[in-house]
Amino acid sequence: MNPWKRSEGDMEIRVVERILAANESQAKENRELLSSHGVFAVNLMGTPGAGKTAILEATLKVLGGRGRAAVVEGDVATTFDSERLARLGVPIVQINTDRFGGECHLEANMIESALAEVPLSSIDLLFVENIGNLICPAEFDLGQHANVIVLDIMGGTDKPLKYPLMFHVSQALLINKIDVADNASADVGTVTENAHRANPSLACFPVSAKTGEGVEAWVEWLLQSAGSGVARR
Amino acid sequence: MNPWKRSEGDMEIRVVERILAANESQAKENRELLSSHGVFAVNLMGTPGAGKTAILEATLKVLGGRGRAAVVEGDVATTFDSERLARLGVPIVQINTDRFGGECHLEANMIESALAEVPLSSIDLLFVENIGNLICPAEFDLGQHANVIVLDIMGGTDKPLKYPLMFHVSQALLINKIDVADNASADVGTVTENAHRANPSLACFPVSAKTGEGVEAWVEWLLQSAGSGVARR
Repeated sequence: MNPWKRSEGDMEIRVVERILAANESQAKENRELLSSHGVFAVNLMGTPGAGKTAILEATLKVLGGRGRAAVVEGDVATTFDSERLARLGVPIVQINTDRFGGECHLEANMIESALAEVPLSSIDLLFVENIGNLICPAEFDLGQHANVIVLDIMGGTDKPLKYPLMFHVSQALLINKIDVADNASADVGTVTENAHRANPSLACFPVSAKTGEGVEAWVEWLLQSAGSGVARR
Repeated sequence: MNPWKRSEGDMEIRVVERILAANESQAKENRELLSSHGVFAVNLMGTPGAGKTAILEATLKVLGGRGRAAVVEGDVATTFDSERLARLGVPIVQINTDRFGGECHLEANMIESALAEVPLSSIDLLFVENIGNLICPAEFDLGQHANVIVLDIMGGTDKPLKYPLMFHVSQALLINKIDVADNASADVGTVTENAHRANPSLACFPVSAKTGEGVEAWVEWLLQSAGSGVARR
């Protein structure tokens, strides 16, 4: 349920405004906490099945010794993704939103609780894998330094135009599964073009989490962004 | 934002209860209106890019003269999908939820408005294409007679376990893009098995909207369901 505004009446609008104001305030605190420890935080969003966890696996492998990472893993239910990532030896905190009524997105207060379990002093990068959803996660600041979207090239070229807010609030787009692009009716050029119509400054990276193609370019962007983030502090 | 319950306080819970109660009541009215015209309504849900619109195109082609159909097309923004379906000569009503604050799901009151523009007396089947989202659409009854999910075989096998509510409230699952299944790490058998763990009575159909494979089996299920629905009235 999108909280921005509803037509039902004033009471609902006041409630929604209160929820969003509380979230903004908590997000600001999270960002200050992360920055004070020199941690650059990425909010990874995208459709269910686009390959967010596979991208994280590929990213952690390619990153190697260039950055110490931790992961906050968001799912409605199950700990499958955490179990996959745990094999890579990074600290992981799982958030299951079925504890919060099955929320379709993460909120800043969930991240606050998770951060208490993250070893902030011994990491450089925090990846937050949001709930698979192209709509509501875009509306809730978590305290991240960058929003990154994962799209599946097989899912068609029109997503940036059909879900404009998510593209508007993000800094980078990973167009995943390019290893099967020959079989898809979609093409990377048109996805990129539509993404730039939604947000001209979006950095776009065609990648394959499966083969590793394109992952180094995204990791370089990430390290550069994290570096300039650190420089700004 | 999932409306079932939130931890913020009593006022939010009351608001959410009021929204859901109003939705249930409107959905009941919609279902009665549809049934009184002998129309069987399908609420088509699934991830963005799973191929909901392509499934509708393939379904309408295979259906032929066996049922007169109309479509209510839901999107946050754009009319791309309506334009695609209009080529097939069926009545179409577009709902853009950016009019409703960018809602991540359809609600019964949106369907009520759309039904005023649908020629109910001259159709047998109404397809409602919901917003691409595996979470919130499952929580809002629209007045449909059947909930149908579209999944992309490329999206992995774990979706029924990670998004259990949608599978719990649905009657059929279309596992799409089986034409590229050889390239995927996913397999139809495991998706079906996990879907049946979430809902043992779910009818599962592996299909390819692109090649047409499997579409006839789904259409037969649909016509049989519509027939028994009519018989129950």
